[in-house]
Amino acid sequence: MKKLEVGILGATGMVGQRLVSLLEHHPWFEAKWLAASERSAGKTYREACNWRLRDPLPKGVADLAVHECKPAGAPPLLFSSLDSKVAGEVEREFAQAGHVVVSNSSNFRMEQDVPLLIPDVNPEHLALVCEQRKQRKWKGMIVTNPNCTTVGLAMSLAPLEKAFGIEKVLMTSMQAVSGAGYPGIPTLDILGNVVPFIGGEEEKVERETRKLLGKCVDGHVKMGDFIVSAHCNRVMVEDGHTETISVAFRKKVTAADITEAWRAYRSLPQERGLPSAPKHPIVVREERDRPQPKFDLESEHGMATVVGRLRECAVLQFKYVALSHNTIRGAAGAALLNAELMKTEGYLD
Amino acid sequence: MKKLEVGILGATGMVGQRLVSLLEHHPWFEAKWLAASERSAGKTYREACNWRLRDPLPKGVADLAVHECKPAGAPPLLFSSLDSKVAGEVEREFAQAGHVVVSNSSNFRMEQDVPLLIPDVNPEHLALVCEQRKQRKWKGMIVTNPNCTTVGLAMSLAPLEKAFGIEKVLMTSMQAVSGAGYPGIPTLDILGNVVPFIGGEEEKVERETRKLLGKCVDGHVKMGDFIVSAHCNRVMVEDGHTETISVAFRKKVTAADITEAWRAYRSLPQERGLPSAPKHPIVVREERDRPQPKFDLESEHGMATVVGRLRECAVLQFKYVALSHNTIRGAAGAALLNAELMKTEGYLD
Amino acid sequence: MKKLEVGILGATGMVGQRLVSLLEHHPWFEAKWLAASERSAGKTYREACNWRLRDPLPKGVADLAVHECKPAGAPPLLFSSLDSKVAGEVEREFAQAGHVVVSNSSNFRMEQDVPLLIPDVNPEHLALVCEQRKQRKWKGMIVTNPNCTTVGLAMSLAPLEKAFGIEKVLMTSMQAVSGAGYPGIPTLDILGNVVPFIGGEEEKVERETRKLLGKCVDGHVKMGDFIVSAHCNRVMVEDGHTETISVAFRKKVTAADITEAWRAYRSLPQERGLPSAPKHPIVVREERDRPQPKFDLESEHGMATVVGRLRECAVLQFKYVALSHNTIRGAAGAALLNAELMKTEGYLD
Amino acid sequence: MKKLEVGILGATGMVGQRLVSLLEHHPWFEAKWLAASERSAGKTYREACNWRLRDPLPKGVADLAVHECKPAGAPPLLFSSLDSKVAGEVEREFAQAGHVVVSNSSNFRMEQDVPLLIPDVNPEHLALVCEQRKQRKWKGMIVTNPNCTTVGLAMSLAPLEKAFGIEKVLMTSMQAVSGAGYPGIPTLDILGNVVPFIGGEEEKVERETRKLLGKCVDGHVKMGDFIVSAHCNRVMVEDGHTETISVAFRKKVTAADITEAWRAYRSLPQERGLPSAPKHPIVVREERDRPQPKFDLESEHGMATVVGRLRECAVLQFKYVALSHNTIRGAAGAALLNAELMKTEGYLD
Repeated sequence: MKKLEVGILGATGMVGQRLVSLLEHHPWFEAKWLAASERSAGKTYREACNWRLRDPLPKGVADLAVHECKPAGAPPLLFSSLDSKVAGEVEREFAQAGHVVVSNSSNFRMEQDVPLLIPDVNPEHLALVCEQRKQRKWKGMIVTNPNCTTVGLAMSLAPLEKAFGIEKVLMTSMQAVSGAGYPGIPTLDILGNVVPFIGGEEEKVERETRKLLGKCVDGHVKMGDFIVSAHCNRVMVEDGHTETISVAFRKKVTAADITEAWRAYRSLPQERGLPSAPKHPIVVREERDRPQPKFDLESEHGMATVVGRLRECAVLQFKYVALSHNTIRGAAGAALLNAELMKTEGYLD
Repeated sequence: MKKLEVGILGATGMVGQRLVSLLEHHPWFEAKWLAASERSAGKTYREACNWRLRDPLPKGVADLAVHECKPAGAPPLLFSSLDSKVAGEVEREFAQAGHVVVSNSSNFRMEQDVPLLIPDVNPEHLALVCEQRKQRKWKGMIVTNPNCTTVGLAMSLAPLEKAFGIEKVLMTSMQAVSGAGYPGIPTLDILGNVVPFIGGEEEKVERETRKLLGKCVDGHVKMGDFIVSAHCNRVMVEDGHTETISVAFRKKVTAADITEAWRAYRSLPQERGLPSAPKHPIVVREERDRPQPKFDLESEHGMATVVGRLRECAVLQFKYVALSHNTIRGAAGAALLNAELMKTEGYLD
Repeated sequence: MKKLEVGILGATGMVGQRLVSLLEHHPWFEAKWLAASERSAGKTYREACNWRLRDPLPKGVADLAVHECKPAGAPPLLFSSLDSKVAGEVEREFAQAGHVVVSNSSNFRMEQDVPLLIPDVNPEHLALVCEQRKQRKWKGMIVTNPNCTTVGLAMSLAPLEKAFGIEKVLMTSMQAVSGAGYPGIPTLDILGNVVPFIGGEEEKVERETRKLLGKCVDGHVKMGDFIVSAHCNRVMVEDGHTETISVAFRKKVTAADITEAWRAYRSLPQERGLPSAPKHPIVVREERDRPQPKFDLESEHGMATVVGRLRECAVLQFKYVALSHNTIRGAAGAALLNAELMKTEGYLD
Repeated sequence: MKKLEVGILGATGMVGQRLVSLLEHHPWFEAKWLAASERSAGKTYREACNWRLRDPLPKGVADLAVHECKPAGAPPLLFSSLDSKVAGEVEREFAQAGHVVVSNSSNFRMEQDVPLLIPDVNPEHLALVCEQRKQRKWKGMIVTNPNCTTVGLAMSLAPLEKAFGIEKVLMTSMQAVSGAGYPGIPTLDILGNVVPFIGGEEEKVERETRKLLGKCVDGHVKMGDFIVSAHCNRVMVEDGHTETISVAFRKKVTAADITEAWRAYRSLPQERGLPSAPKHPIVVREERDRPQPKFDLESEHGMATVVGRLRECAVLQFKYVALSHNTIRGAAGAALLNAELMKTEGYLD
């Protein structure tokens, strides 16, 4: 089977690099067209990009030319990891010009007619693109994935919302520095420190979680009927967002019910056997001190949400810890899985 | 005025070292008698102690002999920072023998007739020692300070409990490695990692906070009438526990009410002018990204609790961030302030 | 081909864990017999061992019993990663009892009749075991690998000694915390710090390098005819020892000569195709800021020595940077490669 | 005595902030005029500056206006911590206009007629400014201090050069991240890593050390008659450059001779009692594992060079470890001490 040639908008950034790396051996897609800011355009990828991943820069990509972010010459399917300052305009231009834009940027996430998609959580939201094309008269479309901090929360809550109904959620994150991109956090700000503020992050987590766990009704999303409150912090970890979560349900449940719901959870990506899908979307650790970024980050190639320390919460009902790989499951891998689902569901035809 | 000679049980540990350091220039007390485990007994303090503080080992103390933890020859007032495995028995023996033991250990904290004391929060609990002596027939007494993680929570809640009444509290801590003592956490466990578990810590925070904010009635403490739930984590910070806190009150309040309550708060240590008392027990930072361990740890010589980021919480009522120096305000400085209060209130006569 | 069953002395320590991990998929050897201190004996490996590697504990090993370090019942080939406090006596006992002991401990390294072996550097030293058996009347034998800091230095020097002759070497190391084992360095000692001292390390590097690059003559090693001076430091890196090296040769050479000698270097492990042998023992990086632990540690599965920044040295002749994985190439992988060479050369028959 | 009003060029950078902080309580000088890049000009210092020091922003300075780097309105004495990209032109303009520029920038350091000054090392070099004014027809002058890595090396060598004569020096540095300014090193580059390259640093150390220890003859400096070779590395330390140093002397010396030369060393700053002068320019630690940034950085308020681990070097003659505070002794404090010396020697009249 010939691979589908795809492009990357914002290819030189941290998430762009992860996309390049994840696409290297992808069975369906092949990175063939790269675009970035004007400063990079005209250079080869190797020249334009300050490669920061431990895995080496794939050879097939190193000598590709970096283009400007203009639709002319771009392939039909594009991943976007552009900075939100420019993503709005660029992604719209590509969608108007007939491209499918699978975006990691925050600009369109909360638009009524744009799917905010985690294939393991709300695959049915993909259908929103029909409304989108109708409303916007675009020949192409935009599909988004959530913020990296939202992912671990929404994935760990999805089986519980389905099984028991959620009423209230309180979350504190301890987020990795890679979530801030590159150069990102200056070392002088974070070495031996905790920074208890990340601009806009708490608001994103609070509203995106409710959209993700909402229902698709009459061409728009009815937000999930629960409350979320988030405290977001930056800590000196390279990759992996750790979250402490307290939750109240709409009915009485036991710890065994919750664990069973997590362990049994499968969704469309697992059913379809999508190449980037984790076999177990939720991995449950039973040690008393896990999950930890050091040991659990690579579970299911970084595509699982790892949970542990489930116990009763005196204030809400239960509390636990969740860990998610912020640049894989929370960004590049999220976009990739979205595109895979779009392919099996016929949205790329 | 001649200084009162005091002793330290567990003088070679991290908290013992902090006590030695804080006592160096203390106007009322002077460290003159040191005790530690059998392994150290018989050596000089310099030999027995692997000094780990940035401030140099005080000269007057370096050549003191280290004794075994036996009452014979010990001064009337002793600070104890013994490991909880041995503290119970040793502290009891000293109290029976007529000594005043001002303890940082957890063993006696929750006993009905033992004051769990933060002078800025519940100075009136000190009166419990009358009941203690009556019940136990001890010639001496034991007074305790709370766990290092409890302190920042209880101090930041104290003015709010008094002004508005608290109903529910949810706290997530990001705790410094010094809280685990020395050698404490192996580097291989925490470098670039978060450890979302600290044995016994959550339970301590949940019950100690309620005792501290409880009322002293008929010789025992009526626990505070609110619920606390804690998530405790270890992060790669040297000193300073950062806490994200959500709270629900018993009446409607505004952010301005809370800030005003914090800023205006003074208690007996400020009134008495205790040498180790912070001028402002609660320091309110207004920057959007503070408090941070790097910048706020030394506020009021490490004796203040620094709060910031006060904002509404969708799940409870308000949320904020608190920071407290875990080995000063949370341990050695806490014990010292307890002893200072005991002196002005006549308990050392 | 049936795999050879092997044992591990000191199986629960950091190097023991690496051995277990590297043996999991080894084509020739299989870990079947584990031994550790009395405290661990009688437990399963899972119970006895605080597994600290990111790769999960291999299932086949988790339920093996942990034995005492006594020869009865042990297989003929044993890897030893015992603490040097006990390694001397235990290894001798096993060798006397007829076992082949492939040791990572320092105790026997400098003995005249014990091979100190890096198969890519001095495979011919293995022949010393004939002398060893003759002298000591042992039925078994002991073969050692060098200190983890020596390895990167000796490997990067080996091609240069062969090609040009070395006269003087000055080395400063920046060593990873995993080199100190577990629990190893307390976080309070190394967080944000450099510790410019590692007990015994400089002496080991200085003498081991000369033995490794010496010639085997008449059943003993004539030490390499050059001088080594080492400065050893601990820095806050998890794995990977970085070394700055200045060297003076016995003849005039150019940077191109040196690079060519490194790139062309192959030795017996490559010729024999040993399973753990790196294809390129020396990997040369050309970027101006490499090698770095973050990016180069895993070169050749952690079995290469990575060099870079070759330039003239005003004091000696040339200077460069070398990086080596301290628990793989510098310990567990080193022992494994030694055993592989012993097998192909007939020493295990 | 009325304090002399001084200005700071590049006041918002890391070294500029240190200058502001060190000048807060200075007995002779008072920061009254601040200048920075066009982007900052017109704002107050509080607005323009992202204050990154642990000590709080001095109140008297916070509301000062930030000017452009133009001489009009500037006081006669200016400290410059400008980026070397702009320092050359700006400093020249100020000197031409009659100002005394005490510069931390590298641009003029190696000019024949510009003093490269460490008052404890080569106070007599200050006389070069006479030649400078003659040659350049400037009404003002420029005086420079060395690179932050040079300082610890040159200070620890100065007493030895004077006493014994130096022949060869080999130095490896482990440099703090604050040396790269702010934002400086991205966390993703240095977390758990060593970067064995700092652009231009090795060359600076090699030539500056020879100028500093050279002799002032006939209005220019005869470079020190010895060879220096440097390896420079960045490690994850906040402040404090640690250096391993090997040295060969022109005559036979003993360890006792060296220690005595260090301990006895005093120079003009000590004689004159300059306010920023360390009482002991060289502090000798006798513990086997010191100096360390964590414990020794603040020696003599960050103005001492701390040495330790003196022992024989097999390749050169002796080796030791030196530590120096890179933003105090190596930058802001260095410039301040230069200005103090200029005042007592009459260069500011």
